[in-house]
Amino acid sequence: MNKVDILITNGVVVTMDSKETVIANGAVAISGDRIVGIGSAEKFSGCRAAKVIDANNGIIMPGLINTHTHASMTCFRGLADDLHLMTWLNDYIFPAEAKLNYEKVKAGALLACAEMILSGTTCFADMYLFEDAVAEAARQSGMRAVVGEVLYDFPSPCYGPIEQGFEYTENLIKKWKGDPLVTVAVEPHSPYLCAPELLVKAGELSKKYEVPLIIHVAETQTEVNTIRQSYGKTPVAHLADIGVLSPLLLACHCVALTDKEIEQLASFDVKVSHNPESNMKLASGIAPVPQLMDAGVCVGLGTDGCTSNNNIDMFLEMDSAAKIHKVNTLDPTVMDAQTVLKMATIDAAKALGLDKEAGSLEPGKKADVIIIDTNKPHLTPMYNIHSHLVYAAGGNDVETSIINGQVVMENRQLKTLEIQKVMADVNQIAKEIRT
Amino acid sequence: MNKVDILITNGVVVTMDSKETVIANGAVAISGDRIVGIGSAEKFSGCRAAKVIDANNGIIMPGLINTHTHASMTCFRGLADDLHLMTWLNDYIFPAEAKLNYEKVKAGALLACAEMILSGTTCFADMYLFEDAVAEAARQSGMRAVVGEVLYDFPSPCYGPIEQGFEYTENLIKKWKGDPLVTVAVEPHSPYLCAPELLVKAGELSKKYEVPLIIHVAETQTEVNTIRQSYGKTPVAHLADIGVLSPLLLACHCVALTDKEIEQLASFDVKVSHNPESNMKLASGIAPVPQLMDAGVCVGLGTDGCTSNNNIDMFLEMDSAAKIHKVNTLDPTVMDAQTVLKMATIDAAKALGLDKEAGSLEPGKKADVIIIDTNKPHLTPMYNIHSHLVYAAGGNDVETSIINGQVVMENRQLKTLEIQKVMADVNQIAKEIRT
Repeated sequence: MNKVDILITNGVVVTMDSKETVIANGAVAISGDRIVGIGSAEKFSGCRAAKVIDANNGIIMPGLINTHTHASMTCFRGLADDLHLMTWLNDYIFPAEAKLNYEKVKAGALLACAEMILSGTTCFADMYLFEDAVAEAARQSGMRAVVGEVLYDFPSPCYGPIEQGFEYTENLIKKWKGDPLVTVAVEPHSPYLCAPELLVKAGELSKKYEVPLIIHVAETQTEVNTIRQSYGKTPVAHLADIGVLSPLLLACHCVALTDKEIEQLASFDVKVSHNPESNMKLASGIAPVPQLMDAGVCVGLGTDGCTSNNNIDMFLEMDSAAKIHKVNTLDPTVMDAQTVLKMATIDAAKALGLDKEAGSLEPGKKADVIIIDTNKPHLTPMYNIHSHLVYAAGGNDVETSIINGQVVMENRQLKTLEIQKVMADVNQIAKEIRT
Repeated sequence: MNKVDILITNGVVVTMDSKETVIANGAVAISGDRIVGIGSAEKFSGCRAAKVIDANNGIIMPGLINTHTHASMTCFRGLADDLHLMTWLNDYIFPAEAKLNYEKVKAGALLACAEMILSGTTCFADMYLFEDAVAEAARQSGMRAVVGEVLYDFPSPCYGPIEQGFEYTENLIKKWKGDPLVTVAVEPHSPYLCAPELLVKAGELSKKYEVPLIIHVAETQTEVNTIRQSYGKTPVAHLADIGVLSPLLLACHCVALTDKEIEQLASFDVKVSHNPESNMKLASGIAPVPQLMDAGVCVGLGTDGCTSNNNIDMFLEMDSAAKIHKVNTLDPTVMDAQTVLKMATIDAAKALGLDKEAGSLEPGKKADVIIIDTNKPHLTPMYNIHSHLVYAAGGNDVETSIINGQVVMENRQLKTLEIQKVMADVNQIAKEIRT
């Protein structure tokens, strides 16, 4: 390897490849948008690089992947907390969302992208209104994203009646096809806000274009009760019966599942997005993640929107994911640090159908890389790198971030966004929301 | 008010006084070690101050108080995780602790003080070995601390047989009497590692000097079973019967309590330290904090040692405390942000008997003040200050910290500690632990 664009060297490389290789004093070489070499720092000593980044004995690892969020809800961060779900939705969130438009959604998404980059996330899956604005925000900030317009039975402030929702989605798919950063998904909201015909049509669209199908499923027991009343079966059984379960399906939350549903999800190779902090804060419950994983289901981690969290820091989400299942099962060995780290990297990539290009550091994959500064009191000393990343580190420890070969943050300075303007825009929106 | 030492101005003052007063554009004036004035910034415009600190529209609030930690366990951060309690203790923690001495405990405590100051904690209650070293570390770093040598039935690496443990404790009490920062407590480990005679003697010593009595109680169901086998009663009933329950008692963890025990704690005005992250990570269980508070028990928040957490950031602990009880009770309205903030400030001060001097910003109280920088993406926009502090902020957002009138951190630079040396010392200890 004679000449590369970027050489990151002098750090512990946590590859998250299938052997979970860790290279003590390692380096990662990048040319264009791809990783072209990984190995000991020594091996790259003769390599000429247009840009050399010294990891300063820190950690070099794949960027984190957030499998479920509503980025633009940054506009409503802290607007309403500690409330019952229906009060929260009907009295605060829905009225606030009625004031949204393309510009506001884009402003909120840009703020989310800033926050995500600053906390080590390089890719996110989004469900919201005016989703083309989120795609544009991701593109502008240089983030990898899976975006999808939310579809439901009632008219949308974005597209109007549902027929136009499918048209909007298909146009999005066509517009962003082949984009190096943005993938479009088909995203019906949930079995309780979508009639069977909507869900079937969404499933067909997903299969037609081979794009992910993303949906909220079994977030609360109340939802399960509703579905049982309407269809006489559990949400997953309902989705199975109408033919919507498929390897393209990413089911978000999956809190209130029966053993039978876990089997069904596994047998159709459905992926699951686990959002522990949102589930805790909204008092939804604790997803049976250890059982899902035992059954062979691929589970990726996600933060959900920051109105129910209230940040979108995947490091904090990893910490919560590791801890909540231990106390829930009274077994401190479940959800060990390495497992959780996989949920936030390679398994998250699999959940989004992006594992050929993201989720681990391997030659040939897209260069989505973050560097953690470990020369900090709360990261001293270091006995175990995985435990450190899950239990001790925070998003703020991410020093540098590269997405698709582009340096989007260096020494904690954002390179793609004018952060003061991004914050000012959302502060302005918040003023309008308040009145 | 003509002349003061420090004027902090241009921020939202969250006083945490009994009326939970919040002053939108406020200021706090400090002279010597005390707060001498609080009010609107305008009111202080004519005040001459030796040092003016501009809070830059951030939040001015009382420093957080950690009611239970083992500071020097920073030396073992991440040494052993995701293990059963007994494997963790017997195979990792106890062998590592056998290598400790005064110097190592002091080095570990200095690192903990650095981490705590950097994350907004101004006061901590500690239980460990060689506790005089922790007191010296607190003094050196300028932190307020309640320290106590751990007492148990077997010989200690610090003081030898238990008789000398009481002597050591009494000497500590005398040595630090009247110190502006350090208070000494009597700290028997737990009902399962302390014979009734030890506990009774500890209780008497606490009453003799009117200092806090701090103990682990009912951390796990296993512990409860052990106490039931030994004494035929629950841990709290056991403590009640031997006359150890008192308003001076701070019972840490209190995870596995019966309704009867909650009543007993309340009727004796015993205080409780709640350590949710440790209880989650070690799979101990979830303390019945909402019931304790309903019964009128004063509950302060704590992180426990950083081997079972693995950081000692009280902001993250607040977030977990708010969320875990919501999901445990399936009620999103329990443990609202304001309640949790009280647990980390004024109620924590009450739990440690320090509420006359700390825990809130009020004229006459000691000046333990932190300033939060809110001009950050993850703290934008701001609708609700309490929700922001609990659900969105992290320790890293603390910009400046003042303890007892001394600026110990300014613009995130520690003023009392040479941080690179502090980290190097603990890295050296970790090297020895590994071998």
